[in-house]
Order: sequence, then C-alpha cells, then structure tokens
Amino acid sequence: MASATTPLLADDRRNVDDSRMSDSEDEALRGQSAATHSGRSLYLRLREVLLFVWALLATAGILILAVWISHHQQTSFQKPSGKRNLVFMVSDGMGPASLSLTRSFRQHVEGLEYGDTLTLDKHFWGSSRTRSSSSLVTDSAAGATAFGCAKKSYNGAIAMLPDHTPCGTVLEAAKRAGYMTGLVVTTDITDATPACFSSHVGYRLEESSIALQQIGKGALNRTVDLMFGGGRCHFLPSSDPRSCREDDVDVVKIATEEFGWNYISDRPAFDEFWEGQKDVPLPMMGLFADHDIPFELDRRNMNDIYPSLSEMAKTALRTLEKATEGSEKGFFLMIEGSRIDHAGHGNDPAAQVREVLEYDKTVAAVLEFLDESSAEGVMVATSDHETGGLSVAKQLHADYPQYLWYPAVLANASSSSEYLAIKLLQHLADNSLSSAEADMASLSEDELAHLKKYINDELVVKGLGIIDATPEELNTLVLYPAISQYSFAQMISNRAQIGWSTHGHSAVDVNIYSSGGPGTDAIRGNVENTQIGEFLQHYLGVDTQEVTRILKADKESKAKVTAGEPVLQSERVEEVDHWVAHEAQVGLAAVSAL
Amino acid sequence: MASATTPLLADDRRNVDDSRMSDSEDEALRGQSAATHSGRSLYLRLREVLLFVWALLATAGILILAVWISHHQQTSFQKPSGKRNLVFMVSDGMGPASLSLTRSFRQHVEGLEYGDTLTLDKHFWGSSRTRSSSSLVTDSAAGATAFGCAKKSYNGAIAMLPDHTPCGTVLEAAKRAGYMTGLVVTTDITDATPACFSSHVGYRLEESSIALQQIGKGALNRTVDLMFGGGRCHFLPSSDPRSCREDDVDVVKIATEEFGWNYISDRPAFDEFWEGQKDVPLPMMGLFADHDIPFELDRRNMNDIYPSLSEMAKTALRTLEKATEGSEKGFFLMIEGSRIDHAGHGNDPAAQVREVLEYDKTVAAVLEFLDESSAEGVMVATSDHETGGLSVAKQLHADYPQYLWYPAVLANASSSSEYLAIKLLQHLADNSLSSAEADMASLSEDELAHLKKYINDELVVKGLGIIDATPEELNTLVLYPAISQYSFAQMISNRAQIGWSTHGHSAVDVNIYSSGGPGTDAIRGNVENTQIGEFLQHYLGVDTQEVTRILKADKESKAKVTAGEPVLQSERVEEVDHWVAHEAQVGLAAVSAL
Repeated sequence: MASATTPLLADDRRNVDDSRMSDSEDEALRGQSAATHSGRSLYLRLREVLLFVWALLATAGILILAVWISHHQQTSFQKPSGKRNLVFMVSDGMGPASLSLTRSFRQHVEGLEYGDTLTLDKHFWGSSRTRSSSSLVTDSAAGATAFGCAKKSYNGAIAMLPDHTPCGTVLEAAKRAGYMTGLVVTTDITDATPACFSSHVGYRLEESSIALQQIGKGALNRTVDLMFGGGRCHFLPSSDPRSCREDDVDVVKIATEEFGWNYISDRPAFDEFWEGQKDVPLPMMGLFADHDIPFELDRRNMNDIYPSLSEMAKTALRTLEKATEGSEKGFFLMIEGSRIDHAGHGNDPAAQVREVLEYDKTVAAVLEFLDESSAEGVMVATSDHETGGLSVAKQLHADYPQYLWYPAVLANASSSSEYLAIKLLQHLADNSLSSAEADMASLSEDELAHLKKYINDELVVKGLGIIDATPEELNTLVLYPAISQYSFAQMISNRAQIGWSTHGHSAVDVNIYSSGGPGTDAIRGNVENTQIGEFLQHYLGVDTQEVTRILKADKESKAKVTAGEPVLQSERVEEVDHWVAHEAQVGLAAVSAL
Repeated sequence: MASATTPLLADDRRNVDDSRMSDSEDEALRGQSAATHSGRSLYLRLREVLLFVWALLATAGILILAVWISHHQQTSFQKPSGKRNLVFMVSDGMGPASLSLTRSFRQHVEGLEYGDTLTLDKHFWGSSRTRSSSSLVTDSAAGATAFGCAKKSYNGAIAMLPDHTPCGTVLEAAKRAGYMTGLVVTTDITDATPACFSSHVGYRLEESSIALQQIGKGALNRTVDLMFGGGRCHFLPSSDPRSCREDDVDVVKIATEEFGWNYISDRPAFDEFWEGQKDVPLPMMGLFADHDIPFELDRRNMNDIYPSLSEMAKTALRTLEKATEGSEKGFFLMIEGSRIDHAGHGNDPAAQVREVLEYDKTVAAVLEFLDESSAEGVMVATSDHETGGLSVAKQLHADYPQYLWYPAVLANASSSSEYLAIKLLQHLADNSLSSAEADMASLSEDELAHLKKYINDELVVKGLGIIDATPEELNTLVLYPAISQYSFAQMISNRAQIGWSTHGHSAVDVNIYSSGGPGTDAIRGNVENTQIGEFLQHYLGVDTQEVTRILKADKESKAKVTAGEPVLQSERVEEVDHWVAHEAQVGLAAVSAL
C-alpha cells in the first residue's frame, strides 16, 4: 500500500506529461495504454474502494465507541429520552452500625459464611452527610426535606425552608410532569418522611393538616396516587374513638367524595390486590393501622392483620407499573422502612435487626422489579440520619471490654420491647393497676411477688427469651412499669453486648445504596443529603420551581386573609419525634422522671 | 462526495471503452483529453488523498478512544506494565462516626460552610467488613493480617493463620519482586499493624521477636527499607533503662552492624533529611519515641522533639521515590494514623479530632505526591476496625435527648486526657504521693483541697478548657487519680455530648478511601477486609505464595529443633491491646477496680 509520502496518482501524471513520443509510438502506446489503462484503472478503483471502506469502517468504529462511552461513562445528567421509573427508599434512622449488626445476625441465624452479605451490601454506593440548617444532628423532617426539596432546612420542617416559605417537592413536580406517584411506609403516612414529599407545614406535628394536604386539599390539588401505611387516626374525625385529629374533620370522607380516592383499611381488602388477583384502582389510600404498623418482629405473629413492608411495596410497584402502561412517563415511588428508627429510639436491637431484614427484603423486591420491568428504572436508598447512637459492642464492666457481641441473644427474642411494655400495661390495667410508682409502692409483698412472676414468666422468658433475669432487673420492671420498654430493651442489649448512646438521633454519615443507572454517579462517594434530593429531580427530568411558585403564591394569599403572625423559627427548633409523641401514650414519657 | 453505491472510477471506464470515435475526433478529444485527463487526474488524486486522510484520521480516532477507554474503564486487574507505587494507609480505629465528628469540628474551628469537607470525604470509595476468624469484633492484629496476607485470622495473630502457620505478606513479596518498602506509624513500629507486614508471631505482644524480624532476623532476611515511628524501647537491650525488651539483645546494634541499617532517634537527625536537605540513606530506621509519639493535640506543643505523621510520610515518600528512580519497580509504603485508635480507647474526642485531621493532612500529602510523581501510583486508605463505639450524640439525662452536639468544647481543649493524666501522676510523685486510693484517703482536708485546686487550675481549666467542673467531677479526680485519663475524657465527652459505648473495639464497617486507579474498582462498594489485602498484591503484581513457602519451611525446621508444643488458639483469643499494655504503665489498669 502507498505510503503517505508517495504521490498517489504518480502513474497518471507520467502518461499525460510524456508529449515527446511519436504518434505511432503514441498509437502503439495508446493501444497498449488502453489495456494498461484498463488494468491501472481497475487497480486505482480497487485502491480507492479499499480506502473508502477503510475510512467508512474507521468512522463507524468511532461512532460505535463514542456511543458506548456516552452510555457507560455518563456521569452528568442528561434529560431523559424515554420512560423512567424512580424508586426512592428511606431506611429511617439506619446508620452504618445497623448493617454490621443485621448482617452478622442473619449469618448467625441462617448458619451462613461471613461472605454471605445482605442485598443492601451488594449495592453499596456511598455515604450521605445529614446535618440540618438548624443543628449538627438532624431530625427526620429536615432530613426528608433535603430529599423532597433538595434544600437544607430546620429540624421539624415539613417541606418548608428556613424562611418559612414552602418548597416544591420532587413528588409534586413529578405528578405535574405526568408521572404517577406513590408513598409506602410502616409508620403513620402523615409522619415526617412521607409528609415531606406530599405536604407543607411549619412543624412536623401538624399532622391533621398534613393528612388533608395529602388527599389533595391544597394549592396543588391531589399529587399522590397511592398511599400505603399506618396513621389511620389522622384521617378519622375526632368524634371517632380511634381518631388522633385535633378537629372533627372526616378526611376519609373528603378523600373519597371530593377527590375520588379509593380507601381500604385492613388486610383482607389489601389481600384482594395481592399478587395481581385484582387491579388496584387509583387513587388508592390503604391505611392498615391507627398508628404504626407493628415492628416486623411482632407483625410476623399478626400477619392476618397487617401487611408487611415488602408486601405493600410489591403491590405498589405492580400497581404503578400497570397504571403507567400506556404512558410516556413512568412513576415515582417512595418506600420507607420507617420503624428502623423506632427500634433505634427504643434502643431495641432485637426489633431493629428484623426491621432491617424486612427492609433488605424490600430492596431485593424493588431490584427484581426493576430488572424485569420494560421501562428504565433506578433504585436509590439511603437514610435520613442514624438513631440511637448504636454501637456493635458494649463494655459492661470497668474491666477491659471483651471484643465480641452475641447475635444469639437477639435471635432468642420473639417480641419487641415495645410489644412487651404494652402487654405489661395491659396486664396492670386488667388488674386495676396503673403504671404509677405510687400504685406499685402500695402493693403487698405477695402481690409484688405475683406480679414479678408474671413479668418473668410471660414477658421476660417467653418474650425476650431471657432465662437469667437478675433480681435487680425484675425489681426495676415491677417498680417502674412505665419505662418497662427501655428496661426490656436494655436487658437484651446488655446480654448481646450492643451499645447505645441516646434515645435520640446522632450525626454519623449514613449509607447510600443504588441499583446504578443514568446519573447515579452524581451520588457516589460522600455527598450532602441535598445532593440526593437533586438527583431525584434530575433523574425524572423535573424541576420544582413552578410548584414552589404556586405554593408560595397560595401561602401569601392565605396570609393576607388570615393576617396571622409568622411563626418564629425559635419556636420550632425543639425536637419532638412522632415516636416520642406516640410512645408517650404507652407511658414512656415517664422516663424523664427517672 | 461519492456515495457507497456509485462506481468510483466510472469516468475512467467510459473513456477507455469509447473506441468507436474517429482518430481526429479522438485526436481532438485526446488534446482535450490530455487537459481533461490532467484535471481529472488531479481531481482523482485529491479525492484519493482526502479519502486517505479521512481513513487515517478515523483510525487515529479509534486508537485514541481505545487507549482512553482502556485507561478510564479498566475495572479488572491486569499485570502492571510499568513502574508502580502503592501507598496503603491505615486509620487505626477510625469508624464512620469519626468523620462526621472531625468534619464538623473543622468547620466550626475554621468557620467553614457545611459543604467544606475533608480530603478523605472527597475520596470516599466504599466500606470494609472487619470481623476476624475468631470473633465478630476484630483486633488490630487480625485486621492487619487481613491487609498484609489477605487472609482472615484470629484476634492477636501477627501475619499468622488460624492453623498457626505464617502467611507471607504483600510487603515481603513486594521486596522480593524488587520493590522498595517502607512503614510509617505514630505508635510503636512493632505494634500490630506494621508488624503484620514485616513479621510473623503467634501473638501480638511478642514485640521483642517482632523487632528482630523487622530488622532482618528471619528466613526472609531484611524486607523493610524504611521505618519511621515510635517504639524505640523494643530495640534497646533490657539493661538500658528505656528498654521494654524481655531480653538483653541490642537490636539497634544488630541492625546497624549485621544488616546495614542507618539509625536515627531524634528530631534533629530527622530534620537533616526534611524537605530534601539531605538524602535519606537506606535502609533507614527512625525511632523517635520510646513508646508512642504523643497525640497530635500534645505533639504540637513538643514539635521540637517529635516529627508529625505528615512530616514522616512526606520524607518517606520522597526517599522511596528517589531510591527507585532508576528502577523498573516502584515502592510499597504503609502509613498508619496509629493513634486515632488510642483516642478511641481513651474515649477522648478532643484528641481524636486532631489525630484524624493530621491523618487527613497526610492523605492530602500522599495524593499530591502521586499527582506529581512520574510513576503510576495508587493510594488506598482504610481502617482495621472502629474503636470506642463512638456516637456523635449523647443523651446526658433521662429527659428526651437534645439533637445536637458541641464542637466548641473540643476546640477549647489544649491537651489530651492522656497527657493530663500523666501530668497528674507526675505531680503526685513530685509530692511523694502514689495514685493509690489509700494514699488519697490519708490526706487531710487541707491537702485534698490543695490538690483539688491544682487539678482544677492546672489540668481542668488550662488543659481541658473546662471552667465549670462540678464538685463531683473534681472529687472523682482527686480520689481516683489512677483513672484520671478516663475521668478527663468523660468531662470533655459529656460537655460536647459525644457518646462512647466501650473502651475496646466495635464491629461497625469502616470506610475505604482511594485515589482511584487501575484495579481499584475491585474494592469499591462494600467488601471484606481481605479483599483489600488481595488488591494490594494485585496492584503490585506480586504473589505471597513463595514467601509463605519459605516462612513455613523455616518454621518447620525450627520446630524440629525445639520440639516445642504448638500454642493453642484458645490461649490467644483473649485480647490485650498494645494500648492497654502501655496505659497500664500510667495506671489505667486500675480502672478494673472501679
């Protein structure tokens, strides 16, 4: 083949320029030339064809490589070209220590090798910094506002900014852009995490308002298509004995009559839709408990009453997929393992490992769904914060600590400390006793001994699986039944050698997990929680600005009407969890008396 | 331009085939043809040149893209083709919570925005599971054996397997393959982490043997080219008052005379090599403290005596780079932020944040070195385990906990609790008092008041920056001076609202950081600590099998000579840290009396 420095058409040039030949010579040559010319021309033609093919192939190669690179190396966001589903999962209160705890527990219970890890472990993606605008230690409200609005805000804020103006959420923007939307939780559907996607209030405990906004009462009308979870009490009028509303508004009635919601409230109704037996009509509100759905550790024994997180998630995925079958847009679904947080607040490691395992099972179900779905989809999972200051090690005595912990202790427990505490209070009530210290102090020795025997036999041995309760532990239980939840949890934690530093939250970074997919490199490594919120919007190709504008205009017009005083931030900084509010009902507020 | 279906040389063919023309016509045409031919030929030539250039450019494009892809997408290991440097960094005892703690502390002290993160944060890579073969909670020995040998072993093992046979380490294999090697630490150079790269003993406290192996006494002869750190006492004969050896062997003498080591033991000698003033002769052993180099918080005030971790690391990097200048092989350097672990054991958050910041500074120096080096290089950094069960939140009272912590408290401390405890014991000794409770009990009220005033004024106010010590806290300090280190640390932790669950280790997964580079995708996500050990070998393209064979053969031949009983694993499971052994000397063992 000619080198790059050889004149390619040198032969032709020589023939044309050679004008000194005689005609005959020329003729003769021309005859010869005709033949030569024909051969040469064939050669030239072939050469040019080959050159052309080479150029074409090389160009095609470049194009293929370029497309491949753009597909595999895509690190910055591009507008979605096709249908997209986004499943955002929140493990409320799950810090890094919960993973090691649950992984080793599972390996112990199922007799697995140390390399046999959780589904979550296999999709580890990065870590998230969680501080809020008002504190180095966030609460769930500020944490979920970072996800919903992609903005830092103060502890307690439900999709509201530090200046007390509402911020549009990814779910609201997605709904306006034509996506279907869903929320699946195991706590009240009005709790901070789901609320931060579907409502706007200055403080998280305004759940009566949150419930109304969630069904569609607000400037944006209805933005949620499917809700599964607990918290039914916020939807029932205060005249209903099961209600926890501040007013007598029947939210279920308004939802069904004014906004067209379908409403189910128990397991049998849910089961009609289980595994595709019947299509779920949308919008659908399924509220399966007055407050929380029980801890998975207890729910297993009440499976006929409450669906599990993974069951609700699977039904939601199938429903939203079906509902978007003919649509160019997919869906946005938020799934929360809500009560990992509650097990942390209660410092109950036996309840926590089962919550994390059920969450892990749900993650696996989501990944399987995404694998099988014909639409492009991404799963991103993270936590809002850590709860409990959990350490997978606890020094019990001043002696140098042992380097170990005992998963078998957690495996022996068949009930959560929350469940056992409620059972103890029920037992006292059945025997016309309150949980007050004074009541206990008035008992005779015999009565105390009798109560102690009940506590040990029915609750400690049968519920915790602990057969060596010390006299001090039983005394504490019988004398301070109001805080028995903490006492039960401590008995488990001490024996398993699991440590806790608080009944509140801590500031450790939390893990991020993902299926991977377009744009997910933006949340790899160590990122701010607001970057996760930004990813959610980017992936769906939506913008919350317009939603924010509508919400602000609405708020301003209402402010003019009511002329109310703006609520000062200082009133809102104090943290009150849903968990605390709820546990107060079973007596735990009494812990402050200790 | 011609399409792919157009015959490229159609013009030429028409001329040649057109034989029905008259001669004159032909002549006339030929005259014309000569001119046309010349133009056409130029056109043809130009076309072919353009085609050729196109083909060449496209091919070049393919080659460039292919090289780029191979450079950027390399996910699986390939034998190194060029010179490689590997810097492996260990943050002993640093769990995920230490990062949030230190990041917020730095932001507070330097007045930075929440997005202003540590160098480590910017290189977050994944997380590592840490359990050992003998426990769910590892110690540093089993942890470092996982790095050195890429094998799980029992707590206490120094590059030994559960069957008590030695396992070759990446450092030893690298040395045999022609790499230069180095170890830089801030604790004893004979401590578990450096020992697991350069020696083999059944139990970590056999430091007299470790020191001898590190200088070259063993089946492999010398494998280390550079050692910087503390632990001089293990190299001095027991007849020397500074020695902590079990025998009268003068290891420094053997090192210099038999193995050609250069030895320096103080800051002035180190400074001669600082910033390239003088080349460091190899092999070089720099031991700058009898035991540990002081916590960075204290070292800052003794800068004329002890070099910092970043200073030692920079000198080591420069030295090893220079030493491998003409070599085809690069170097393997292990750098340990050893005393993050000790701050965890002591539950001292003020000491810990400064240790982590100095480690972070060292990471930045390593990354800068790799950037500027002409040789390919990778930095991988991780921890062996978490220490202390650190939580960035602590509930101080039975009231519902606050959601916050106070970095300002840590900023106020100018000395570690370790340093203050030593100062207190020194003060007692100067006043002819021991730290025994009996001694304290025999003091008069006046003497106690006098001592309490000294403790408060000189140690608590000046050292901890605490001006509101309670009477109870001062009483504890004066009555139990033997455990004052813990008491000082607790005063800091309580005021900062930082929690700890143990003075030992915990099982939480630890973070992995990396510069990225060939093969580092193998340790992205959540991996077992042994996978990090495997990566080290893969990156350097070395195999420890041959080293293991030599070590085993040597051990077997010695076993025949001594006919000693094999040590049972059960004797080895009990954990005794270097930290505990050392702290016992300053009285902390007395904590078990509490």
